[in-house]
Amino acid sequence: MPVIVQKYGGSSVADVEKIQRVAARVAETRAQGKQVVVVVSAMGDTTDELLALAQKVSAGNPHRRELDMLLTAGERISMALLGLALHARGVEAVSFTGSQSGIITDGAHTNARILEVRPVRIFQELERGKVVIVAGYQGVSREKEITTLGRGGSDTTAVALAAALEAEVCEICSDVDGVYTADPRLVSSTRRLAELSHEEMQQLALAGAKVLNAQAVEFARDRGITLHARSTFAPGPGTLVKKAVSRELRISGIALDEVLLVQGNGQRLREALQAHSAWPREMWEDRALVSTENVHGLVALRKELETFAAIEELAQVSVVGSGVGASREPLDRALRCAGGSSPRVLVSPLRIALLVPRSEAKALVRALHAEFVEKS
Amino acid sequence: MPVIVQKYGGSSVADVEKIQRVAARVAETRAQGKQVVVVVSAMGDTTDELLALAQKVSAGNPHRRELDMLLTAGERISMALLGLALHARGVEAVSFTGSQSGIITDGAHTNARILEVRPVRIFQELERGKVVIVAGYQGVSREKEITTLGRGGSDTTAVALAAALEAEVCEICSDVDGVYTADPRLVSSTRRLAELSHEEMQQLALAGAKVLNAQAVEFARDRGITLHARSTFAPGPGTLVKKAVSRELRISGIALDEVLLVQGNGQRLREALQAHSAWPREMWEDRALVSTENVHGLVALRKELETFAAIEELAQVSVVGSGVGASREPLDRALRCAGGSSPRVLVSPLRIALLVPRSEAKALVRALHAEFVEKS
Repeated sequence: MPVIVQKYGGSSVADVEKIQRVAARVAETRAQGKQVVVVVSAMGDTTDELLALAQKVSAGNPHRRELDMLLTAGERISMALLGLALHARGVEAVSFTGSQSGIITDGAHTNARILEVRPVRIFQELERGKVVIVAGYQGVSREKEITTLGRGGSDTTAVALAAALEAEVCEICSDVDGVYTADPRLVSSTRRLAELSHEEMQQLALAGAKVLNAQAVEFARDRGITLHARSTFAPGPGTLVKKAVSRELRISGIALDEVLLVQGNGQRLREALQAHSAWPREMWEDRALVSTENVHGLVALRKELETFAAIEELAQVSVVGSGVGASREPLDRALRCAGGSSPRVLVSPLRIALLVPRSEAKALVRALHAEFVEKS
Repeated sequence: MPVIVQKYGGSSVADVEKIQRVAARVAETRAQGKQVVVVVSAMGDTTDELLALAQKVSAGNPHRRELDMLLTAGERISMALLGLALHARGVEAVSFTGSQSGIITDGAHTNARILEVRPVRIFQELERGKVVIVAGYQGVSREKEITTLGRGGSDTTAVALAAALEAEVCEICSDVDGVYTADPRLVSSTRRLAELSHEEMQQLALAGAKVLNAQAVEFARDRGITLHARSTFAPGPGTLVKKAVSRELRISGIALDEVLLVQGNGQRLREALQAHSAWPREMWEDRALVSTENVHGLVALRKELETFAAIEELAQVSVVGSGVGASREPLDRALRCAGGSSPRVLVSPLRIALLVPRSEAKALVRALHAEFVEKS
């Protein structure tokens, strides 16, 4: 029987009514004769609420091992509620923690890496005909310590399980119905992409697109897993993220990321970022570009970064697509869109990134979308 | 170095400020040169809130295995927050789930019994000089399923750990400063007991006194553990619960319990109660006396009990003390306190229990306290 992995983000399980709708969707997939493994995030704002408690009780400096213990309660609650909802519908289901699922990580609390997946209990329960629900974002170290995977961790859990279970597909279900050429809140003429390559998706994610986590996409690329980004509650074909097929210049989309550009002693800068589990978007000897998305304890991080020589609040606007950074012409077009200002530029084969003041960012997204997506 | 086990109930860890005060109390004990193991309940009303979610998502009929998974998130949150608070004070601490603490139970979800305690990791961390925080109320079965211990489970966790660690004392810290001869909210002249025997405490708890859980006291009696009921935030000597010393009639106190008296087919009645994890206070062939305290899903239970021949909402008021049920005279005095009404009576060596309408219960508590405690 084919295995399907479905991951539901926090907004898809934000309350009891939504959890019941997710249960209905899972039941439907099960009824189609598939073995279903469901990965869930914590409900809505639970993780943020727990983080706020942690900051408060620890005077802004939470011990990471205890922070992991705390945060993993969030997925425990959502997965058990989904298990209860499935049973109430007459669907046999069993929920497992990261540890029970056999998700073995290194010991880097708040930012652990999956080393290995041993889904012994998942296989057993699938064979018994049960739906298996797995807590996203968490695992256990070889020392039997509870760990979390850091930003976007539930996506990574889903991909790692899909690989270990040889799933036919890994669905990433959220409140958007696929990957778009730009944020629909910024650009009205944005288009849904029917498919794109792992590399293109990775660049979009790294450039600030929120639909899929960059590390999870990298994981999927390395293991040849096809991802299917879909809406939880709306129908529609979504977006497939799969192996690259070679072709000429093709634009994936325009992405926006709010960043901090920090300058100072490189060694101390690296240490400060590591201490806050903040992954720099880019890192040079004497400066780092840090996204302000998904940073746990942003206030504490910003406070520490202010001790460095210089800190600027900027936006990074990116054009992502195969071959976009491989020739001079797309860069010239991008710079023309930036108008009179002469932004700092980062270029890599799949991406052109422009650093501009935050006030100019949204207009630049629209201009780049008109130039690169709407014209083509 | 002597080991001390301290258990803090839900009201002692109800918010961040209280958790910080508990951390200060734990740090103080540690500074006295003791190895400290702390057992915590879930914060304030967390368990009730999780139960309400479970009822809602499962249409009032929660699957027990998933319910256990859900409820154990409550202690996980409180123990991690206490760990964070201790670290913030510079006290090395580590929090463990029931499973990590080696609390092995049978597989009876929502009402498991502790079979064995293997505190390997607790010993290791104590030797490293750390304070160990343990999630109360939970354990793990030999099949590696997460279980909960049922009502008052955190007290039982504390006692079982005290036995396994050969602790010099097991402190049960709550918002009252010891065991009283009656509920101070009902009787103004109530007295704190300096000490009483395990058997007397067990009878008081079974009769409805809330300070200590009856099963935990039974566990302490069987293992010879001295319990120390104390206030978390107020000073004071508290109440010691220890091995019995033989003596004549001595009254421990007056207790009140709200109960349902149900009549009907005994076999079906036992099954219904078991299905809701409701332990009857008393059980005969064709009737059961069920406390409405600490019943998970009381609404569903009451609905099912209403399908039986008869159900009465009553109060059980008890006089508890050594020898109180061993002669005619205390019973006559108790019945005189009940005045004109002729209540149903249950007598056992350590206790006289009177079943009365709820409206008469509080007055009867006061009359019995005046007769048995204030006169003596």
